[in-house]
Amino acid sequence: MFKVNENFCLLKENYLFAEIANRVSAFSKANPDKKLVKLGIGDVTLPLAPAVISALHEATNEMAMSSGFKGYGPYEGYEFLREAIVKNEFIARNINISIDEIYVSDGAKSDMGNILDLFAADNIIAITDPVYPAYIDANVISNGGKNIVFLPCLAENGFAPMLPKQKVDIIYLCYPNNPTGSTLTRAELKQWVDYAIKNDSIILFDAAYEAYIQEEDVPHSIFEIEGAKNVAIEFRSFSKNAGFTGLRCGYVVIPNELSTKTAEGKTLKLGELWLRRQATRYNGNSYPIQKAAAAIYSPEGKEQTKQMVAFYMNNAKTIRESLIQLGFTIYGGINAPYIFLKTPNGMTSWEFFDVLINEAGVVGTPGAGFGSMGEGYLRLTAFGSAESTKEAINRIKTQLKL
Amino acid sequence: MFKVNENFCLLKENYLFAEIANRVSAFSKANPDKKLVKLGIGDVTLPLAPAVISALHEATNEMAMSSGFKGYGPYEGYEFLREAIVKNEFIARNINISIDEIYVSDGAKSDMGNILDLFAADNIIAITDPVYPAYIDANVISNGGKNIVFLPCLAENGFAPMLPKQKVDIIYLCYPNNPTGSTLTRAELKQWVDYAIKNDSIILFDAAYEAYIQEEDVPHSIFEIEGAKNVAIEFRSFSKNAGFTGLRCGYVVIPNELSTKTAEGKTLKLGELWLRRQATRYNGNSYPIQKAAAAIYSPEGKEQTKQMVAFYMNNAKTIRESLIQLGFTIYGGINAPYIFLKTPNGMTSWEFFDVLINEAGVVGTPGAGFGSMGEGYLRLTAFGSAESTKEAINRIKTQLKL
Repeated sequence: MFKVNENFCLLKENYLFAEIANRVSAFSKANPDKKLVKLGIGDVTLPLAPAVISALHEATNEMAMSSGFKGYGPYEGYEFLREAIVKNEFIARNINISIDEIYVSDGAKSDMGNILDLFAADNIIAITDPVYPAYIDANVISNGGKNIVFLPCLAENGFAPMLPKQKVDIIYLCYPNNPTGSTLTRAELKQWVDYAIKNDSIILFDAAYEAYIQEEDVPHSIFEIEGAKNVAIEFRSFSKNAGFTGLRCGYVVIPNELSTKTAEGKTLKLGELWLRRQATRYNGNSYPIQKAAAAIYSPEGKEQTKQMVAFYMNNAKTIRESLIQLGFTIYGGINAPYIFLKTPNGMTSWEFFDVLINEAGVVGTPGAGFGSMGEGYLRLTAFGSAESTKEAINRIKTQLKL
Repeated sequence: MFKVNENFCLLKENYLFAEIANRVSAFSKANPDKKLVKLGIGDVTLPLAPAVISALHEATNEMAMSSGFKGYGPYEGYEFLREAIVKNEFIARNINISIDEIYVSDGAKSDMGNILDLFAADNIIAITDPVYPAYIDANVISNGGKNIVFLPCLAENGFAPMLPKQKVDIIYLCYPNNPTGSTLTRAELKQWVDYAIKNDSIILFDAAYEAYIQEEDVPHSIFEIEGAKNVAIEFRSFSKNAGFTGLRCGYVVIPNELSTKTAEGKTLKLGELWLRRQATRYNGNSYPIQKAAAAIYSPEGKEQTKQMVAFYMNNAKTIRESLIQLGFTIYGGINAPYIFLKTPNGMTSWEFFDVLINEAGVVGTPGAGFGSMGEGYLRLTAFGSAESTKEAINRIKTQLKL
């Protein structure tokens, strides 16, 4: 009899966003006249930038002609895109990354899950708490999740994770952080790189929100830190900086220096393993989508995506300042599109979620859904429209009976 | 110290198509004036159909407006596409499949590899020989490939695989077949479904070349066979029927009936596991690409893609009939875009590959690259232009010194 991967039985029954969808749907059914303002899921709302739209049309026209048609592309992505990424994301910041260290994909979520194919099942895995739930679920499916060590992130430390007491092999870091909206300083990130160097660990660095960094001392890439190229893989996405959640494109940076030894002493380069993995289980991203991604690095594309980020950060400012005025304790929203607010009156995350939806018709994301240390918090996103963001704040101000 | 998945060390050093690329590159360097005709890789060459192009432009225009912008889509794909698939691929052939059994993806190669995430590592896996190499590599990466049983496919049986002597749990079948171009009759396929029912096995049925079927008795879907919904998953692709190799879209059909029991007796539905897997490690295919895929089911799209298939099948006919005239022993090319030819004079596959490139400047794919039973064969594809196909045949006729 064929046997399934029984790790699936270890997954928690309801995925966070599915549970939110269930409660939203129940509320809407019971209150058909009440229009909800949704600041829950971290999905963008602005239409694609004109430069991206033009690139999609142009690539489509190429695909309509024999001379321009593209079939299977390179597994690691087209050179034109990898070149634009290297030049604009790394060289421009004096970070030494070359195009053969860039691997384009259909998004950071795929990459963050698929990277586990490269690792043995018995690594000790450190994951921050709270955290984006897919990191944990991907590990549970892949290795049973039995060796996960949680790194508590506390408000009093600005949600910076504490170094683990036991030795860990694989470390997930996401900064600017989802869901807390917090960041690490260079000095804080350096501690982690140093830890990884000392312990032969590897850091999986999720930099999906890099474009939202406004302050000076916040690193945009882990490769700004000395020694990181020996111990880190970085995950990037076009979802949040250019609104590609519905187009799908991201990339992973695997330095050529990054290698390890097998039990028998053979040196394996992680980049080579990844390329082999991708060649076997993936066939590259769509040509028009890669052309669209490259277009965000044109002068117009840069200006247009910068304005999109500024638009969302203006929403973040609105939420942040209004909630502070109302007496809430809040975090994030300065270098990230997320505001993490302390629930009032000692409510649990889901209690406040229910109060917020029932009294104000506003949907947030319960912090407890991101892990036990997220209990007592609620995440609001800045990805709504300007109107819906103001409407949400206005409802919280006038309708919430606390 | 972090440990890698050492199964990567078990992979054969050179991926088939990489080795071909190396030899082609070496030849071109040594013979800069000689232009090669490439009938090696199974990549399409015709530009996208006008209906597909229109759909891409329209979807792009939607993404440019607030009212039409789409962010994250459903993990299983948009309903408009799943509906079109069900109606045209299944209901139209009296096959009982519903839209909640369709899961859209970025291509069959991703699906065929990713499906392994659902299975335990100790299943006995039956794979035909010869076979598309990624099936094997995906298993080696995922479970070490130690439990693979090869099913020899011999010319004297029309390359139909022999039922295994030992009990197997997971069975890979691909019909119309890559690389042999052969098909199974309903009666032959029924044997496999019956085997799977009797032995609680599961069949992974790759139907990527379904659109090329010309003859009546050849099943288009394994779900034409009674009982298959309890034992099979089917993989489909838009790559070969509509030229989506560079756009990326496919889907998998997982019947609601398909379930298994855990060691503890809990029933697990494979479709539910897959959706959870996709929700964790994937974020759905691009909206414009899904619109493009749906467009092949419009009246114009159907007619245009039908013409594309007819065009390639005309190439297949040219290759087939000419090679027979020249005295070659050949297989396939009737219900599939592949011609599998017996190498002349007892040459090995790679010997004939070298002769063909050196004497005629024609690139094929050595059968041995698809497995030991492919030794002594060479695959030619019908995916070239009409001119290059004729040119290849002409060169074989006039320049090959056999």
